[in-house]
This record gives sequence, C-alpha cells and structure tokens, in this order.
Amino acid sequence: MQQSQRWIRFERAGKAGFGTLDGKHVREHRGDMFAGPEPTGSVFALDELRLLTPTQPTKVIALWNNFHALGEKLQLPVPAEPLYLLKAPNSFHAAGEPIRKPLCEGKVVFEGELGIVIGKTSTAVPEDQTLDHVFGYTCANDVTVADILNRDASFAQWARAKGFDTFCPMGPVVATGLDPATLTVTTLLDGAARQHYPISDMRFSVQQLVSLISADMTLHPGDVILCGTSVGVGSMKPGSLVEVEINGIGRLSNRFG
Amino acid sequence: MQQSQRWIRFERAGKAGFGTLDGKHVREHRGDMFAGPEPTGSVFALDELRLLTPTQPTKVIALWNNFHALGEKLQLPVPAEPLYLLKAPNSFHAAGEPIRKPLCEGKVVFEGELGIVIGKTSTAVPEDQTLDHVFGYTCANDVTVADILNRDASFAQWARAKGFDTFCPMGPVVATGLDPATLTVTTLLDGAARQHYPISDMRFSVQQLVSLISADMTLHPGDVILCGTSVGVGSMKPGSLVEVEINGIGRLSNRFG
Repeated sequence: MQQSQRWIRFERAGKAGFGTLDGKHVREHRGDMFAGPEPTGSVFALDELRLLTPTQPTKVIALWNNFHALGEKLQLPVPAEPLYLLKAPNSFHAAGEPIRKPLCEGKVVFEGELGIVIGKTSTAVPEDQTLDHVFGYTCANDVTVADILNRDASFAQWARAKGFDTFCPMGPVVATGLDPATLTVTTLLDGAARQHYPISDMRFSVQQLVSLISADMTLHPGDVILCGTSVGVGSMKPGSLVEVEINGIGRLSNRFG
Repeated sequence: MQQSQRWIRFERAGKAGFGTLDGKHVREHRGDMFAGPEPTGSVFALDELRLLTPTQPTKVIALWNNFHALGEKLQLPVPAEPLYLLKAPNSFHAAGEPIRKPLCEGKVVFEGELGIVIGKTSTAVPEDQTLDHVFGYTCANDVTVADILNRDASFAQWARAKGFDTFCPMGPVVATGLDPATLTVTTLLDGAARQHYPISDMRFSVQQLVSLISADMTLHPGDVILCGTSVGVGSMKPGSLVEVEINGIGRLSNRFG
C-alpha cells in the first residue's frame, strides 16, 4: 500500500491552491491533484489559509441504507443493490465554514459519513480494479431537513431535503493510502460522541460501490461517493458544533446556523 | 419583451465557442453568455460545427408531477409544492449525439420537456422578479430507465433511473425573449408525434418554480430547471429517433442506441 498523504485545497491571497498537509504546514503543489502534481517549493502555515472543499466534484452521490446496524435498527429491507441520491452542488461546503439554516422550517439533522474520492475517470470498473480508481477518502456531513423527506407521500424529496446551500461539508483533507475496511466514523455534537461506527459494517463495500455505481454513471476525478450513515443521527440546534472524525483522515468541523 | 435570440454552444477546431444562431449561420461571441457577450465578427456555417450542450449547468433540476393532464391521467395527488430530483452531470448531452443504451436491462423512455435556463445567481427570488433571473428556454429529453424507478419498494431510484450517461439531451439552442405561457412541447418518435402539450398546463408556473426552488437551492447562470413532462411518454427502441420541438426554440434530435 502506498504511503498515506493528506491533500488539502485552500484559498490564499484570493487564489485557489492545493498541497499536502504535514502537521500544521501545507506544502503547495501545482498541476493536477490526481495526475502527477509537483511541489512548488512553497510551504504555508495552515492557520493562514482558508480551506476549500477538498476536491471540486462534478457530482456527489450519497448512499441510503448502507449500514447493517442502522438498517436493522430501523427494520429496513435488505437492499439488492446500492440505493442512492445526488447532493446538489450548491450544498458542497468547506471545513470550518458555518452550515446555514435553510429558509424552510423543519428539523435539520447531521449524518457523519465516509466519502470516497475518485481519482480516475471510471466507467463500469470491475470490482478487483476499483481501488486503482479511488484517490482517497474524506470526512463528510450529509446534512438533511428530515421533516421534508416524506411529507409528500407520493414522492420522497431526497434531492431537496439534502440539497440546501451548505448542506454537504467535506474535508478537511483527502487522505490517500488507507485501507477503508479499517476506518471508523465518529461524529461529535458539541463535543459529545453521537455516532461511532466501523466502515466494515457497510452492506456494500467501497469496492462494490465504485464498481456498481460506475456501471450506471461515469465517475470523474474529484467526484465523491458518500457511503451512507449508521446509528446515532441527531438534530442540530442553532449554534451546534458538529465534528466528523475518521482515523487517518482528520476531523471535519462545522457550526450550524 | 426583448427581441428573441437563439444562443448556441459549439466545438470548432477543438475549441469550445458560442454565438447566436441566425438561420444556418452562427455569429460567434466572446465573454460571458449571461453578462454582455460581444460579437467576435466571425460567422460560421452551422453544419461545420459540432454542437455542445447549450449551457454548462452546475445542476439540472427535474420536476415530477407538474402537469395537470398527466397527473389526472395517472390519478396522482395534487402536490402542495414542487417535487423534484437532480439529473447527474454525466447525463448532460448535446443535440444530435446518440443516447447510449445503459448496461442495465429495462425499458428506456423519452420525456419531452421545457428547460428553464437561469441567467443570474438566484437565491429566494420573489415571484414577480423571477423572469429577470431567467436567461431563456431550451428543449430537453429527460430520459429514464422506467423499470429501475420503483423496483425497490423502500426507496425510489430517481437519481439512478434518470442519471445514466447521455440521459439528459438539451438544446439545440437557448432562446431568449419568449413568453413561456405561449409555448407548446411536441415530442416525435421516428417522426410521429407522441406528445403535444401546452406549458400553460403546468401546476407550477415558470415564475413559481424559479421562486420556490431558489428558496431551497441557489441557482447559478446556466443551471437548468426541467419543467416535467405530460401525457404521451413512451419507450425507445435501439435506433429510435426522438425529437423534442418547442415553438420559438427549435428541435432537439437524438437517436437512441
């Protein structure tokens, strides 16, 4: 397995840049993050930079009912294939930035999730080749207005309930060289752990997700698959701090409202 | 009302360009299509150009159950608010290009639709200001694998069924200066009219759609709202030619498979 690196995108002096995170410093790179980027030689202090979303996805796909523990708790049927929706691009959001309360009424919930970051254009990738197409992994919060989802009995509003501006914080980094089966997602609400679940509990593994979804939709470098969430989802109040931490990646922190 | 123009995007000598369509010629422009583009002075014959999608949307939103005639035929409940999904960006497709048969099995259907093209960044736009935020209108085919939609009873697969590569042909142009209430959508399958319905039959008007959706999601220049379809949807066979024609815009033609 390759050595793990943690890639970050940032804004500095009004310009977007990217590089590798090393402790509290960022080694700036140039070129294509996914295809042989080169160090520029510049090193910046992390706290002088404003973070951006770790990649610029053309799409973010989000899984539903992908963890045994949550499916069993909610007595959901076992899906025969991945069940997924799309997060609207206006929801893509950087680490550290506030999640905005939508204009509509309704309970707003956090869902800590692992994000798979695609590194190569992927169409119908055989399962045993999928990890060559994965660039790395990031932390995500799949924010949802729960009350909107099912208030029309004829049409579940997945796109709308999960698509409000700022509703898809991702980051702070994309970490490469990890074995996804060893990862654990922990979500903290105002410092208290509310979710703590292993990625090994997924119904569809990273390899299956990339293979099956890429058979439907071509995936592009920077695209993200959110793996779904497990037990412990809860609502946020104005001022709540939500942190999604995954070992080997880092901690994504966003305040609500 | 402003004079109607028909904007087109194209590829020529390996480069993307755009301009206004005048009969069989395109007057090339430079700058931003949505903010004071200027003629370059070059004029190209339309048949020397390869068409591109008429804009480069960050997202395409698609309405469900938005026409009285189809809702009544299918005995759907009257929606209290717009019901919508997102089309995956890998589905965005140009006029004239073939719609590819997906790898999965299942009946593939056409849905001729009007597309609203946004011209200004739009957040919670009051209904009486919405038409200032609309750049123009285009023709679209909201292609769907019908058999996928409801085969899992617990989760309707809107994103997947409508998100396969090439499943969102749009174009050939964006027409400005039209009154949407006067438009009629006609869909032809191998030359025979299968859909013929007025936009005035919409449950939610163009003004209501832009106002209500922009209250949920910020809309960006080039984003497209597909207004939903009405009666006459049908399946395509390999080799089928589907044409979506709207008065004042033009005819979007794509062959299947």
